[in-house]
Amino acid sequence: MTRKLILDLDTGIDDALALAYAIASPEVDLIGVICSYGNVVVAQAVANTQQLLALLGQPHVPVYAGAAHASTQSDFQVLPVSQQIHGRNGIGEVHLPAVTASTPQQSAVDFLIAATQQYGAELVVVPTGPLTNLAAAIQQYPSLVDQIGQITLMGGALTVPGNVSATTEANMAQDPEAAQVVFTSGAPLAMVGLDVTLRTLLTKQETARWRTLNTASGTAFAEMVDYYIKAYAVTSPDLGGCALHDPLAVGLAIDPSLAQWLALDLTVATTGATRGRTIGDLKRLTATPRTKVAVQVAATTYLRRFMQRLSCLFAQN
Amino acid sequence: MTRKLILDLDTGIDDALALAYAIASPEVDLIGVICSYGNVVVAQAVANTQQLLALLGQPHVPVYAGAAHASTQSDFQVLPVSQQIHGRNGIGEVHLPAVTASTPQQSAVDFLIAATQQYGAELVVVPTGPLTNLAAAIQQYPSLVDQIGQITLMGGALTVPGNVSATTEANMAQDPEAAQVVFTSGAPLAMVGLDVTLRTLLTKQETARWRTLNTASGTAFAEMVDYYIKAYAVTSPDLGGCALHDPLAVGLAIDPSLAQWLALDLTVATTGATRGRTIGDLKRLTATPRTKVAVQVAATTYLRRFMQRLSCLFAQN
Repeated sequence: MTRKLILDLDTGIDDALALAYAIASPEVDLIGVICSYGNVVVAQAVANTQQLLALLGQPHVPVYAGAAHASTQSDFQVLPVSQQIHGRNGIGEVHLPAVTASTPQQSAVDFLIAATQQYGAELVVVPTGPLTNLAAAIQQYPSLVDQIGQITLMGGALTVPGNVSATTEANMAQDPEAAQVVFTSGAPLAMVGLDVTLRTLLTKQETARWRTLNTASGTAFAEMVDYYIKAYAVTSPDLGGCALHDPLAVGLAIDPSLAQWLALDLTVATTGATRGRTIGDLKRLTATPRTKVAVQVAATTYLRRFMQRLSCLFAQN
Repeated sequence: MTRKLILDLDTGIDDALALAYAIASPEVDLIGVICSYGNVVVAQAVANTQQLLALLGQPHVPVYAGAAHASTQSDFQVLPVSQQIHGRNGIGEVHLPAVTASTPQQSAVDFLIAATQQYGAELVVVPTGPLTNLAAAIQQYPSLVDQIGQITLMGGALTVPGNVSATTEANMAQDPEAAQVVFTSGAPLAMVGLDVTLRTLLTKQETARWRTLNTASGTAFAEMVDYYIKAYAVTSPDLGGCALHDPLAVGLAIDPSLAQWLALDLTVATTGATRGRTIGDLKRLTATPRTKVAVQVAATTYLRRFMQRLSCLFAQN
């Protein structure tokens, strides 16, 4: 069965890789992308996504503009560290051809709800940024949590330190209240956090292979990811590459057997110094968990598959 | 093969249960107990241990006085919360007959080192308090980490919040520097932290069964644990019982198949607000781990075994 996939992106560089992985994967049918603020402002996320879809031969996939700021805020400014990692335009200062895609009438949240009603257990949603859109959908339509097939999200850190503080990962830091809505909703959640994404690294060896394809997408993605690798060399010099945060979430949504999962319901800290931390919920410690957390990953197998799929896609576009 | 066991106790109430579980387990031969400060001062830990050994028909097991304070301190005061949970005398204000056991000449650290040299891979050490003794032994005799069979420690919290702060568990809080020595030593470590110990709970139903045995040990342990349950009802009203922290560490040291383990080398924060936190070590994320962390436990099976073993032991003493 080809499952239906919706991505929820704040389209920076690893979001672009997630989009490419989704398009390159025959197991899923990408029925739409919803966007939010995060690595960039939401309008930029929409524009980046539309341009990337055109670049990858999928201009027909609809892109919906979602949340422009966190659920508890009235505004959003891109963080300097986001600009440092993803570039001011979110895709490493690579300039793609402008597209004139029409923006759908429906809102991002309404699209998510309608897709849940239409596809139910067949629907997989992969958010790779703040959880603002998903929380709004759950609050507007609580039955979503029982009807949706699976939510596999990139975010959080359970067994390793955070990347914006000792306890907190960047996507969770953006909107802890929305994250708490999602994590306590009872939805079938799979968390793909820093626990595993810091173990799947890409280096300039891989981007060099894309360059040799001599295609528009191969060259553009090589340039984007080289920018990302350069930023990682400054922010995380110990890693020896850039982390495949967002594409790993898509990879594990499609094939969960690539990870070891810990069944554990989580809570998100919304106050104090640990604000945004994802941690085991003591109140639900003896209940049957609805959340599973990826705690180990078959990194070599995943990376091989990642390169096979993306190289094949880039060769054709 | 009957493995050799050394317990490292700061003898409060759950340490007493750990001692009883060790004595009641045919798979291990308890060759000695070393003590430290923690739930009580070290002299009290030694006295409690000697009295408990006598109560349980094992007066010949040697008890060694170890660290009186943390490795970075020159003094130690029992925390008010320790007194609240374990009573001023550490064993719930239960008064056991005084014993006149001779104190061995050898120091606790020297005993640990000598036992490692003598028994090697056959030796299992279970620390249930601060890691001060073990760190001192590793620093004095670094080969310990390669020669010792297994160290299964009660302490830390990886996937759930701490119990002295949002990030930090009580045993780790006592001596983070010592814990860091142990966790980065390369020793074969198994961490039994709050992740699992908060899932194995004892209630007054169980202590009532011990009372009906009408023996000195059954009555004394029922009184101790009732004190502990009462304290837990105040400090952790949501749990619905008292946590079997220390005896679970002994149980998993003897039968690791009762837990799901996550292979992950940890680091211990020694500075800042998260001081004492046990968390995945980013520097060793892609190396082959020497540490495993219990993240799920077969609680019902363990509790059944715990009650069978302790009831049998208490019936005879």
